[in-house]
Amino acid sequence: MSHPEPAPTLPCAPEAVRRVACIGAGVIGGGWAAHYLARGYDVTAWDPAPDAGPRLRRLVEAAWPALTRLGVAPDASQDRLTVTETLEEAVTQAQFIQESAPERLELKRELLARIDEAAPSGVVISSSTSGYPMTDMQTDCADPGRLVVGHPFNPPYLIPLVEVVGGTATREDVVEWTGRFYEAAGKSVITMRREVPGFIANRLQEALWREALHMVAEGEATVREIDDSITEGPGLRWATMGPMLTFALAGGEGGMAHMLDHFGPSLKSPWTRLEAPELDKKLYDAVVAGCDEEAEGRTIAELVAQRDQGVIDILRATGRLPRFPEGGVAK
Amino acid sequence: MSHPEPAPTLPCAPEAVRRVACIGAGVIGGGWAAHYLARGYDVTAWDPAPDAGPRLRRLVEAAWPALTRLGVAPDASQDRLTVTETLEEAVTQAQFIQESAPERLELKRELLARIDEAAPSGVVISSSTSGYPMTDMQTDCADPGRLVVGHPFNPPYLIPLVEVVGGTATREDVVEWTGRFYEAAGKSVITMRREVPGFIANRLQEALWREALHMVAEGEATVREIDDSITEGPGLRWATMGPMLTFALAGGEGGMAHMLDHFGPSLKSPWTRLEAPELDKKLYDAVVAGCDEEAEGRTIAELVAQRDQGVIDILRATGRLPRFPEGGVAK
Repeated sequence: MSHPEPAPTLPCAPEAVRRVACIGAGVIGGGWAAHYLARGYDVTAWDPAPDAGPRLRRLVEAAWPALTRLGVAPDASQDRLTVTETLEEAVTQAQFIQESAPERLELKRELLARIDEAAPSGVVISSSTSGYPMTDMQTDCADPGRLVVGHPFNPPYLIPLVEVVGGTATREDVVEWTGRFYEAAGKSVITMRREVPGFIANRLQEALWREALHMVAEGEATVREIDDSITEGPGLRWATMGPMLTFALAGGEGGMAHMLDHFGPSLKSPWTRLEAPELDKKLYDAVVAGCDEEAEGRTIAELVAQRDQGVIDILRATGRLPRFPEGGVAK
Repeated sequence: MSHPEPAPTLPCAPEAVRRVACIGAGVIGGGWAAHYLARGYDVTAWDPAPDAGPRLRRLVEAAWPALTRLGVAPDASQDRLTVTETLEEAVTQAQFIQESAPERLELKRELLARIDEAAPSGVVISSSTSGYPMTDMQTDCADPGRLVVGHPFNPPYLIPLVEVVGGTATREDVVEWTGRFYEAAGKSVITMRREVPGFIANRLQEALWREALHMVAEGEATVREIDDSITEGPGLRWATMGPMLTFALAGGEGGMAHMLDHFGPSLKSPWTRLEAPELDKKLYDAVVAGCDEEAEGRTIAELVAQRDQGVIDILRATGRLPRFPEGGVAK
């Protein structure tokens, strides 16, 4: 589906945005509002729930001490939040619109069409959807070209990642503008070139989540054991180094190639209910080359030292330095 | 299979162990050696590779500055490492034996039988296997009752988790002793009551890894995007709060029950190649009850505050405090 009208102009540079509208003020929409306020934006918010205003203010208030400790923009203030009576009021002055409605396709479709109708011409409308492709959500919009996905992680005021991806009808300049906007708003952006349901991180955590549910269903592990196995195990690494490069270091001085030679056969093991892809030469080469590229010339020894420092920093920061019964101390 | 002889006595209390043998000195065996040395144990190590000695010493030396920063036992020293010429020399004085050979079932089976033959009576032999059930590895041992899995995470000198699980022939007191030994050695222990291939954390990270490989194979994401999506996204949460409780917080004040009501239908979405279990009442109740139990009376607001503080600590510790072009600062 391609856009029939001449492309409307974007109203301002992404770095010049000062007024953001948040449509939907639950956990995610409210978290976005807290984030934008902390970054010094004016925020207008609307949510159809009768208690949306007080609930949103409570959420922002609860997050504010943490945000202040983390650092807020010089002119940031909770007073710059306006909760409006109608959707139209919320978007009429907005230079960027973040939609965070419940995860139901029909609802998203209708709501995005309403936002599109009410919003100033050219203003980008970004959806927080956890997994719907924009192609399926922008169908009822008069100007689908300005609709894009900007998928955050909970809480949006702390977790940097936003996945940006357009639908078939989304304009290329809108995708590019949105990535720059989120960067300016302090987020860490991955712009996807292809629409995949669940995007990247949700596909990865959904795989983990489904296996966890299988384990609970089969009585193989408790909820707490699942959580402890991550926070005391791989989770400590993943806050400082991703799963691919982490696994490359399991290969010792041989890196990812050696790791795949050694653990490749495990892809045939029943270690999860997830079917593995065939580890053919093409995939093998892509994974090894991808790790080399990500390493940017760092040797395995340098990567190990960097991972170790990261994990130590995290252990120290989260109060998990080793304890010694006989009185050893950290230096 | 049950043990025919009267059960041999365990040679000492787990807290009294002073001498540990590491059989296999690659990335994992060497990492274990570094850990035990840092905790003040005498370590004897053996590996059949011709350059095993110098390689192991290099690995321990490389880890030592990090370990010193993290904190070592008062009497810890790299000089307390002895690399032996034979397996027999390595285990003859040992009070605990950690096997970390390559991940091949036949090799593990034979090696464990050799260790069992050479080791002092009653000394526990623990395998670092990434996923083989001990039932399948202890088959050729004369005293299979003292064989147990103690599965670490790379690097064993920094990541606290050890998964402990026995095979069919493993004695119950050996499983219990091993858990206490690892606790005394500064590890964070999950003792599994059932053998499952891959244990807990490896099943979870294997699910994620397989989905990541599918995405690379399909050209949906690059290796770097996969890694960034975790370190800038869910990985930051998982270092401080596990995936289950993290998801409970996505349910707002309604917690896990609300989250399952809202995102349960997503289990039918093609968000990963992994088939989800049926979210029937039993599984629903088990997940909600498990989260309640893990929360130990903390309210959702308290859990949110705790997660936020954890993520902020991690962001600060890993040098990822927010930057403001206009000069805002963290307080």
